[in-house]
Amino acid sequence: MYKYPEPLKKLVEQLMKLPGVGRKTADRLAFHIVRLSPPEALRLSQAIQEVTSRLQLCSHCQNLTEIDPCPLCSDPARDKRLLCVVESPADVTAIEKSGAFKGCYFVLHGAVAPLQGVGPEDLRLDRLKNLVIQRSVREVIISTNLTVEGNATAVYIADLLKPLNVQVSRPACGLPVGADIEYMDPVTIEKSISGRCKL
Amino acid sequence: MYKYPEPLKKLVEQLMKLPGVGRKTADRLAFHIVRLSPPEALRLSQAIQEVTSRLQLCSHCQNLTEIDPCPLCSDPARDKRLLCVVESPADVTAIEKSGAFKGCYFVLHGAVAPLQGVGPEDLRLDRLKNLVIQRSVREVIISTNLTVEGNATAVYIADLLKPLNVQVSRPACGLPVGADIEYMDPVTIEKSISGRCKL
Repeated sequence: MYKYPEPLKKLVEQLMKLPGVGRKTADRLAFHIVRLSPPEALRLSQAIQEVTSRLQLCSHCQNLTEIDPCPLCSDPARDKRLLCVVESPADVTAIEKSGAFKGCYFVLHGAVAPLQGVGPEDLRLDRLKNLVIQRSVREVIISTNLTVEGNATAVYIADLLKPLNVQVSRPACGLPVGADIEYMDPVTIEKSISGRCKL
Repeated sequence: MYKYPEPLKKLVEQLMKLPGVGRKTADRLAFHIVRLSPPEALRLSQAIQEVTSRLQLCSHCQNLTEIDPCPLCSDPARDKRLLCVVESPADVTAIEKSGAFKGCYFVLHGAVAPLQGVGPEDLRLDRLKNLVIQRSVREVIISTNLTVEGNATAVYIADLLKPLNVQVSRPACGLPVGADIEYMDPVTIEKSISGRCKL
């Protein structure tokens, strides 16, 4: 039986560990990488190394950063008393792109998911609590995903912050901009109607 | 404007060079790689390095290999006088999986594509010619893709080999196994009918 040469086999195995990369995609990527020139391959492999060696978590907001505290936490123009709690660093990027938020963040790096063995104790919520107290935060917007796990996490955090006398909110749930109501799921439509705004 | 930390930005740029990887996929992969442990990241980056440094082209068939000649060319059980010409090493794997071929290969690493500036002179066809003469090959099966470029390459190679008095063939073109005729494209149906076999 014909087999891939060992280095190719190893690369395919490593690539298959990436999210959304199955056997066929890994093969395609590997055959592309094989054809890279040595300096190109070096650039890719160094970028992978550096992203794990040079990045750390901000000691304030837990976002990925090269310098601690991160640029957002050390920016004097940002409102330190307004906090947005998100599940991942990618959520920070998405919210920043919207330009709608000028406060600081707290990145959970996950959500409560009992079936995957992730409990509230894994989300460093003690640090969130400390940050709220230390900065005497005015409002916490809990922007976890609108999934079962995200909602459960939001409820848990709201309960946790209750004794601190801080306002807790959650982004509005409803129809996305550009939505075609005909094709929206019934739960979103229900939410958008029960949460309707006066014109 | 918020930006990714430099190492993350670099990694996303490198990943976007891979085939089929756009901005969003690159982001998702990068955020996954960030969360790898340093040894895991090392394994991935080493695999990338090694695939370019440890692999070479077989001096006989041009397939990727660690040792020259490759295991297929040095296997005494394979028919050296039967040659299958393919566009890429991935094609060798696909044909080997079928188990239908017991000869040797010749990998072109491309196809004639004038619009991309790939002419016949880029495909090392002189080496193919030499191999056919040297091994006194009996039959060459030209298994380039059934695309415009693959077909043009097949015609060119057939012409090239004509003076050598070797049999030249091409795999049958028709309906794939499991095909639902209702959904097949008209050109394939036409080919399958004009090339019909007696029962």
